[in-house]
Order: sequence, then C-alpha cells, then structure tokens
Amino acid sequence: MSRPRRTRVGIIGAGPAGLLLGHLLHRQGIDTVVLEARTRDYVERRQRAGILEQGTIDVLRECGAGARMDQEGLRHDGIELRFDRQGHRIDFPSLTGGRSVMVYAQTEVVKDLIALRLEAGAPLLFEAEALAVEDFHSTAPRVRYRHEDAEHVLECDVVVACDGFHGIGRRSLPADALRVFEREYPFSWLGILADVPPSCDELIYAHHERGFALHSMRSPKVSRLYLQVDRDETVDAWSDDRIWDELATRFAVDDDWALRWGPITDKGITPMRSFVAEPLRHGRLFLAGDAAHIVPPTGAKGLNLAVADVTVLASALVDWFAHGNETALDSYSDTALRRVWRAEHFSYLMTTMLHRDPREDAFGHRLQLSQLRYTVSSTAAATSLAENYVGLPLI
Amino acid sequence: MSRPRRTRVGIIGAGPAGLLLGHLLHRQGIDTVVLEARTRDYVERRQRAGILEQGTIDVLRECGAGARMDQEGLRHDGIELRFDRQGHRIDFPSLTGGRSVMVYAQTEVVKDLIALRLEAGAPLLFEAEALAVEDFHSTAPRVRYRHEDAEHVLECDVVVACDGFHGIGRRSLPADALRVFEREYPFSWLGILADVPPSCDELIYAHHERGFALHSMRSPKVSRLYLQVDRDETVDAWSDDRIWDELATRFAVDDDWALRWGPITDKGITPMRSFVAEPLRHGRLFLAGDAAHIVPPTGAKGLNLAVADVTVLASALVDWFAHGNETALDSYSDTALRRVWRAEHFSYLMTTMLHRDPREDAFGHRLQLSQLRYTVSSTAAATSLAENYVGLPLI
Repeated sequence: MSRPRRTRVGIIGAGPAGLLLGHLLHRQGIDTVVLEARTRDYVERRQRAGILEQGTIDVLRECGAGARMDQEGLRHDGIELRFDRQGHRIDFPSLTGGRSVMVYAQTEVVKDLIALRLEAGAPLLFEAEALAVEDFHSTAPRVRYRHEDAEHVLECDVVVACDGFHGIGRRSLPADALRVFEREYPFSWLGILADVPPSCDELIYAHHERGFALHSMRSPKVSRLYLQVDRDETVDAWSDDRIWDELATRFAVDDDWALRWGPITDKGITPMRSFVAEPLRHGRLFLAGDAAHIVPPTGAKGLNLAVADVTVLASALVDWFAHGNETALDSYSDTALRRVWRAEHFSYLMTTMLHRDPREDAFGHRLQLSQLRYTVSSTAAATSLAENYVGLPLI
Repeated sequence: MSRPRRTRVGIIGAGPAGLLLGHLLHRQGIDTVVLEARTRDYVERRQRAGILEQGTIDVLRECGAGARMDQEGLRHDGIELRFDRQGHRIDFPSLTGGRSVMVYAQTEVVKDLIALRLEAGAPLLFEAEALAVEDFHSTAPRVRYRHEDAEHVLECDVVVACDGFHGIGRRSLPADALRVFEREYPFSWLGILADVPPSCDELIYAHHERGFALHSMRSPKVSRLYLQVDRDETVDAWSDDRIWDELATRFAVDDDWALRWGPITDKGITPMRSFVAEPLRHGRLFLAGDAAHIVPPTGAKGLNLAVADVTVLASALVDWFAHGNETALDSYSDTALRRVWRAEHFSYLMTTMLHRDPREDAFGHRLQLSQLRYTVSSTAAATSLAENYVGLPLI
C-alpha cells in the first residue's frame, strides 16, 4: 500500500454530480480528488438523461460549463401530451414566466465537465474503484480505493458519494443509519437511439392503451425513443421492426403526422424505480444524486436533482471551508430532500398518469384519461405540470 | 291494479336530483310525476352532503329555489388544509376569479324543493316504491310502483332514475347494457352532528398519521365532524369521549387553536366508494345523480354532480319536448360523464392525498406530504384544488 493521498473533498464518482461538484469547488480554490471506477471512454459514452431544467442550465452557464451546451443544445419551450389520438401542447415560457428546458444529453455534460477538469489540471482518476468509506464520523474520513492494481487511501476533510445507486458510498453506511423509501413499477423502458431526424420539434409523451411511449431526440439528426415494456422484458424480444411498429401504433394520431423510421444504433432496457435514502449527511460523509435517490425517468428529473444537490452542497462546503460557517452544511440534507421529494412526487405523477399499469382496473384507466384531459384544458393544471417540468427554483 | 297514470317525465326518487329535475321541468310547463319510496319525514331528515358549488348555488337561485339558502347558508371563501400540525388556507375567490361555495345541507335543499313542489301542486308521491322500469326501448316506457298497498303503472314519454346507488332504475337494465367502473377504499367515515358552535370559520381538512379528519358545520350552532375509521368499524366502538379525543388528536396544531366539544346528536358510518355506470341513457330511460355515479365525499362533489346532471338533462328535455330537437338529449350521457369523470378524479385525488391508506408504504406517505406541501406553496397547485372544489363551469 502506497502512502495516503490527501485532499479536502474526496469525491466518489465522475458522473454529472461528482464532476460538477469538483468543478464548483475547484473554482472556489477548494482542493478535491475525483475517483471514478470506470474508464473515461465508458463514462463519456453511457446513455442517460437528456433534459436540462432551467435551473440546471443556469448553474452550468454560471460556472463556465455551458459553452458547448449553448451551441449544441436545443432549447425546448414545450412538450406534447398525446392521448386519444390527439396531441396537446404544454407551453412552458407562457406558463412559467419565461422558463424552458434544454435538450442536451447528460453524456455531453459529462464530456464538458471532464474536459474542464483535465484542462484545469485537477485530479480525476479513472479506473479508480472506491472500496469503502471509513471513519466518516471522525474529522478525518478516508476512502480506500484500488487504482493501477494497488490499493490506496484518500484522506479527506469531507467525502461526497456521487457514485450512483449501486455505489459504495451509501453501502458504507450501517443499515440502521438510513431510512429508505422505495417503489418499484411493474414496467420498464425500452430505449433506442436511431440515426434519423426526430419526427417532432418537441418531446411527445404518449398515453396509449398498449402502453406509454416517448419521442425525444439527441440532435437534429439523432432520435431517442422509448417504449413502455413489461418489467421482465429483454432486448432480444424486440427486433428493430417490432420496435418501430409498436412506436408507430402508440404515437398514431388522427392528423397526417407520421413517425420517421431509421437505423437503430443503441437499444437498452431501464427498470423504473423510485428510491430515497435519508438523511444525506452522516458525519463527514455526504450523499448526492443517484447515490441517495432515484426517480423514474418520466419526469426527466434524475440529472437535474443531482445538479441541484451538488449546487447546494458546494455552496455549503464553501461557507464552511472559507468562512467556518457550518449552518448550510447542517441543513444540506433537509434542503436537498425538500426538492427531492417534490421531484419524487412529480415523477410518480407523470409516471402513473402516462403508463399502463397492468395492476390497474378500468376505473384507473378512466382516471388517467380524466387527468390528462384536465391537464391540457385547465391553465392551473398545465401550469402545475410546466413549473415542475422546467424545475421549481433552487431553494 | 288501477288504471295507468300518465305523465311526460316519470322521475324516480325525491332526492335533490329528482326534485330539482321536477322543478326545472315544471317551470317549463312539462308535466312530471315524482315517485319516492320513503316518507316525507324520512327524506327531510336524512343527513347527507353540505357543500354547494358555485354552479349549484347559481342553478338553485336562477330557478327560484335559493331564497332560504341565501338567508341561512354560510358562504365560504376557502378551506384549510392541516398537516404537520400547521394549517394552510386555500382562498377560493382570489384563485378562481371570485367563485366560492356555500355551506347549506343537502337535507335543507330537499326541504326547499319539496315545499316548492307541493306549493305548485305538482305530483310528488311519498311511500311510492318503484318496482321496475319497463319498455324503455319503446316510445312508451313505464314505471311499475307500489303505493298505498296497491300496484300501479306510470306511463311516460321518458323515465329518469334519480333513485340513488341502490335504486331500481339502474337495476332495471340488463347487466350487459352498462359498463361499470368501481373502486372501494379500505376506510370509512365516522360522521357526527354535535350541538356546539364550530371551532373554525371554514372547513378544515386534516391529514394526520392516525388518519384523516374533517371539521365542517351545519350552522353557527351545529358542528359536523368526520373521522377516518377502518372499513369494518361500527359505531358501537366509538363512544362520544373516544370520538372527541380522536378528533382533538388529529386536529392538533402548534398554535393556540382548540377544538370545542359538545353533545353528539347523530352518529353514522359511511363507506367510501367510487362508482360510475356508463352510459347514462338507455332509450327512454336516463340515469342521473347517485343512480349512475358515486364519489367518496372528500371532494364534496356528490350533490353537486347530481345537480349538474339534471340541469343538463332538464335543458335537453326542454329542447326535445318544446322544439322537437333531440341533439342535446343524444349527447346528455357524454356531456354529463365528462363532468362526472373530472369529479371522480378530483375526489380520488383529495381522498388519496388526505387519508391514511393501510396498504400504503412509507414512500406513499412521503408522497402525500410532498403533495400537500406543494398544494399550499404553489399558486398553480392551489388554483387546481380551488377550481375543482368550487366546481368547473357547467359545460
């Protein structure tokens, strides 16, 4: 074992949460080390979310990480809710005082933040697998990790676990330290990337008796589409033709709109889960992003919650390191969880409003349709959807 | 068997739906007979809902049935949502362009409509039990009924069943003529009337970990309160002291508000059910009010839906009888059902947001709290509650 390395803030995970936290702290002169178990190539290729809330856009711009986003991202001023073979647009700026969202893939955000960090010469170790977080109830927490075939120790003032749902950060805590809230859904999303221009200018959320479908996009030339499938479904059961047929059926409308088909370049199945582990602080160990909470992707909130968490946490850490004021750090967990639960509720609502739940009866289906009709016919209901979708202000 | 009696519109049931329909038609010179299985005394005493939507208030006023309501009814401009030991007011007029509700018991509406009908000399038979509706697919539907120990026949152009959930109207239809949507809830309401001035000026809807409670009122001297209890609970298990203790616990807040206790004069348990039977027209037989749909009382929608149904239906019948135009009658079912499903959804939302469901897990409870906090902190969410509570405009 080599001699321990030292830093102020040890960050586990080079996803958007860990990278953005590292960047925000680096800008304030706070020393950090980011440990990432995977290769740079893997991290920069994995397909995740693609919708940035107004607050996320603002944070990335303000910290100098928004240049390529502003060039290549697609500003979206609304979404379409499609049901009963008709589309209904929800206009964001007019309902939310000018707020909107940006279609810019999480994987691009990750590339931008990695590039910034490497340019700055700040430490970012790939293939550095965190093995355990230790002594986090002392003033000298440590991360044990494996890197280049050897075990190492990172000594920190603070450790932040941004290592996702399966990460070691949360799993380093004793079971009785966490209160866990969880919901599994009896369906999954089959997601594809296709080399075909999107068939729409804005996202389409389609409610259909055969199940939910979502039309999204990555760029003017690349479409991203999703189909609700059974929970135990495998990709093997879904040939390209079957996928396009099913998408065409679920998006069908009574006017002359048509779905463009094209070669599928990526195919994957994502289970749907709601999950919250409270609290987000345990002595000198903090949880952020997917390490502490998961939302089903219907509300497009996962990435945005991660950004909100680390924005609040970075500011609290600066207060503490620079001014010795621990107040904000003490309230980090409560502050972040208020937003987390708002997003959990919104994501649950969007999910249950749009998906076909095999456990639901005919009454439940009629309630969905009534809720959808109300959402597109009441300004209050549409505003409620819009203000949650573009993101409520950061507290 | 006596000779058949004849009328244009045979109305089964002298609840608010049947009586108001009779009144609206009578004012347009259309001959009706109302058959009611119970005694006048019974009908005028049974305790039911007590909140009139703005649209219901308007209809009663416009047809000359609002005089006593306007004298004795209590205009309410808001309700309180109480949770986490704090109250939050939802103000109706400011959120809905000046609309509000009236606290005026259904039983008083019934008294007023009976008085009007008897004054007008229009036929209203008490203790006249409808036995069957026959030949409703012909142009001469008939109601067989028992009155004064003999069986009679009422020959009609149209029959309207306003005879409630257990009535003969819906049960005269073959099972395959109806599509039924239903939801039962695993809890009931224990309701009391108490001779004590209300402890609040407006209704309080309280969410508590021990279950929902509602503080309502009948007059400045009579309180009406409800407790969520288990579905199989009986009144015997609830002594007056136990009721007041439980109410005090569920309404407890962190300020100096206190619940006033007083003698309980009425005690009853109401199961909670959502129910819709479609369509509302079968040839010359029409269903209205509870005969076709039930909502849990949390949204205060049952009486108001009945009024909306018969208002739409009366206007359609006038179009047909007076002008030979059947268009509105043909669309009565669809028109009424749109409003019914909106109310079903709202009632379901209010019920699931406020009650403790024994089947729900900790995640579900956190969602409730997030939804409640959002409802009282977002203008859009508060507006959504308010506009549904005061009632969306009659289509």
